[in-house]
Amino acid sequence: MHKETARLVELDREHSLVVHIGAILGWDQETYMPSKAIEERASQLALLEGLAHQKAVNPEVGELLSALEAKSDLSDDEKAYVRVVRRDYDRETKLPESFVTEYAKDASISQATWVEAKRNNDFRAFEPHLARMVELNKERATYLNPGARPYDVLLDLYEPGSTQESIAAVFSTMKSYLVDILGKIRSRPQIDDKCTGLQVSARTQERISHYCMKALHYERDRGRLDVSAHPFTTTLGTDDVRITTRYIEDYFPSSLFSTIHESGHALYEMGIDPNPEFRGTKLADAVSMAVHESQSRLWENIIGRSHAFWERNFPVLSALLGEAGDGLDLDSFVKSVNRVSPSLIRTEADEVTYGLHVIARFELESALFDGNLSVGDMPAAWQAKYRDLLGIEAPDDRQGCLQDVHWSMGAFGYFPSYALGNLYGAQFWATLKKDVPDIETRIAEGETLSVLRWLRANVHVHGSRYTPGELVEKVTGQPLDPVWFERYLREKYSKIYGF
Amino acid sequence: MHKETARLVELDREHSLVVHIGAILGWDQETYMPSKAIEERASQLALLEGLAHQKAVNPEVGELLSALEAKSDLSDDEKAYVRVVRRDYDRETKLPESFVTEYAKDASISQATWVEAKRNNDFRAFEPHLARMVELNKERATYLNPGARPYDVLLDLYEPGSTQESIAAVFSTMKSYLVDILGKIRSRPQIDDKCTGLQVSARTQERISHYCMKALHYERDRGRLDVSAHPFTTTLGTDDVRITTRYIEDYFPSSLFSTIHESGHALYEMGIDPNPEFRGTKLADAVSMAVHESQSRLWENIIGRSHAFWERNFPVLSALLGEAGDGLDLDSFVKSVNRVSPSLIRTEADEVTYGLHVIARFELESALFDGNLSVGDMPAAWQAKYRDLLGIEAPDDRQGCLQDVHWSMGAFGYFPSYALGNLYGAQFWATLKKDVPDIETRIAEGETLSVLRWLRANVHVHGSRYTPGELVEKVTGQPLDPVWFERYLREKYSKIYGF
Repeated sequence: MHKETARLVELDREHSLVVHIGAILGWDQETYMPSKAIEERASQLALLEGLAHQKAVNPEVGELLSALEAKSDLSDDEKAYVRVVRRDYDRETKLPESFVTEYAKDASISQATWVEAKRNNDFRAFEPHLARMVELNKERATYLNPGARPYDVLLDLYEPGSTQESIAAVFSTMKSYLVDILGKIRSRPQIDDKCTGLQVSARTQERISHYCMKALHYERDRGRLDVSAHPFTTTLGTDDVRITTRYIEDYFPSSLFSTIHESGHALYEMGIDPNPEFRGTKLADAVSMAVHESQSRLWENIIGRSHAFWERNFPVLSALLGEAGDGLDLDSFVKSVNRVSPSLIRTEADEVTYGLHVIARFELESALFDGNLSVGDMPAAWQAKYRDLLGIEAPDDRQGCLQDVHWSMGAFGYFPSYALGNLYGAQFWATLKKDVPDIETRIAEGETLSVLRWLRANVHVHGSRYTPGELVEKVTGQPLDPVWFERYLREKYSKIYGF
Repeated sequence: MHKETARLVELDREHSLVVHIGAILGWDQETYMPSKAIEERASQLALLEGLAHQKAVNPEVGELLSALEAKSDLSDDEKAYVRVVRRDYDRETKLPESFVTEYAKDASISQATWVEAKRNNDFRAFEPHLARMVELNKERATYLNPGARPYDVLLDLYEPGSTQESIAAVFSTMKSYLVDILGKIRSRPQIDDKCTGLQVSARTQERISHYCMKALHYERDRGRLDVSAHPFTTTLGTDDVRITTRYIEDYFPSSLFSTIHESGHALYEMGIDPNPEFRGTKLADAVSMAVHESQSRLWENIIGRSHAFWERNFPVLSALLGEAGDGLDLDSFVKSVNRVSPSLIRTEADEVTYGLHVIARFELESALFDGNLSVGDMPAAWQAKYRDLLGIEAPDDRQGCLQDVHWSMGAFGYFPSYALGNLYGAQFWATLKKDVPDIETRIAEGETLSVLRWLRANVHVHGSRYTPGELVEKVTGQPLDPVWFERYLREKYSKIYGF
């Protein structure tokens, strides 16, 4: 390791410590903080953000990067490291301080207005703020990469290497098969929703969650499970990755599958270790949000909603449920949690329709940034998109274009990751099945460790050593291809719905 | 407010934010942190300590202080504020960086050695480290105040304004009456220890703790109760003061009284507000550790172990205990939790013998720093002191001079605060009874809010506006006098033991 790299590692680790300290405060805020502490907590977080920013834009980082970029004898890990540090350094330094401050202020007002507007179902109150967020994001994109299309710059922030064109191509294929599969499912008798309405106490659901975490080999001495309004995973340190869930007493699968989902995220974070010399640095960060999502969705859906997984685990689930689970058997349970039904709320969508929700948002964002859709026309465009893709109509904007928080924060380009995650996950799964042909038998025997070991060795360990595009090629031997998700869905749902 | 004061407030608030962030990490470490996170947490805390130190020794603080000290038109609050900021600034700046680093390193080794030595009952292994800690503390005192007696300088760190002489005078009086009262108690039949052995689940004890917090008017939206190995109170922000307890299933009074004790600390922190302009500054810090302890001990013992308090609350306690509490009645419960019996462990001592434990340590520390006791003679000196004061002998050094953690950290001068707290508490209580003559009737009627209101208005609100000496005079009309604690003990225990 060059001495410049060593110094960069040192500075990077300090930055990462500050980020982790912020994560501790954030975790506490969502889980245990008393209500009146909110105001001072905001000041504490602002102080840490300022400190993290200082460390991120430290000119010494720029000098070290230039020195390293001029060398021809970097190791592969050093090259990868310089790439990710350069990317983040440029992002942090290219935006003028005045822009960042203005953006933060406007985004905060926009978010507060959105909360109100959603509550009152009043899109017009939110409209000028949405317009402002679009405008500011165009400006942001120009600062970051003046030569590129603004929406491409934003997409690249979340999924490095992706463009509107590349995502549109993938989504176009995905859209046509999702619509086709959904049509087939709709032509068949609907599945009974056996789990809804069963009364299961929070305490029992907590036991079920802990059982699942154990079954997935979540390391309990490196994390924990808590309760929050919205489930999340957060990294408070290299050896401290926590997840949360929430308990809905008349729908226990909600906590069960959110625990498995968040465990998938946590298993990824816990498994990153590209090189001990780069521990605690940006090389040991996750490669992208979509790859992150591939891990949570793979565990939640491909494993967690599979018949194989429950062959071994249903008896325990049943025992934990006790009387509350009377009338539920393995088959009816697995069918129930795989019920497909177009609905208005993305976060609660099934595996088939979920992608359509995301495509809707991607197409609307594309139109907004291409200038083919004005902010004022968003409510009508949303309705048209949902009629077209899902065959349903929101009764109000609250469940329509005011549904998600992302736009109010100006997080344009974020949504595609959610669906790309499903695609990556299915492609990884297809390769895993080739590498470990009896994997489904193993899972049915309770041996999920084989899945974790494969993911750890092939995906987790690398951290940010490769771009998402390089990683998927390295792991699966080919670029991202939506066909694997199609095959997975057709195989699974043709059995469940009998088409 | 002068513009220099305003700037000082600004810098001080930033320092305080960093300290509070550290408190969040510390609280998490003791309550919820997964075990493997310990190493990175240490780095996170070290980073925050460095940052807090930077802010504490900022030369701008020194310049602002000098400018303000030269003015003749400071308001009373400004004067008090300049005094406390000056005190802390001098403490932080007078110690050379090299000394602080060396001290931290040696103290850390000393503490680790002490843990081992205590486990192995091996004083000789700890002896050189104890000697080093004494030496370093003499050095520390010389840096801080070269003209003064080292032990006086150390005592002043914990109880501003106190000296070996002033404490010795107070403790000499206290010792004679404690020994006398203990003798009288020993001449009477011992009380049954009705609570020991009752099996009460952690869950029930938690409910009892929450009930007590409510009965004491602890503000639940500004704090919370958690579990930790050793109970503590910690301030994570102006509106975030948390307490912890621990549950011993066959001795429920442990959690009950530790919750009341820590609530007393928290009520103090929650009630400090000398002046809104100085919120979040050192003027809004507690005045001293002894005054802090006066609050916890007053609530725990004077209120919490009183017959009056349980007249109203015992029926609820009994209901919460359910079957586990069968056989316990109001009188036998109150007697049981006021049982006096000399024992070896300070932290579990009753109200009468507790002071003797503290006097033993103070006299041993005095002898060490006066040069009348060598470190090697400590075990024998300890045994002699315990025979003399408490009439008992420790079977080993583990329960003798290796008992407490303080000396291993070099915290000499700390112990007196524990006993001074009882004296302050009793003196405040005597004044409260004069001001609110029917206070005991009110407590018996469940109206403890009268106690809190009085403490808040007379003690809590002031923060650091006065020195401890000024505060006790202002509140009670006279300097600290151990006679009030004597009167309290004689009145209470003559009834309980019938002498």
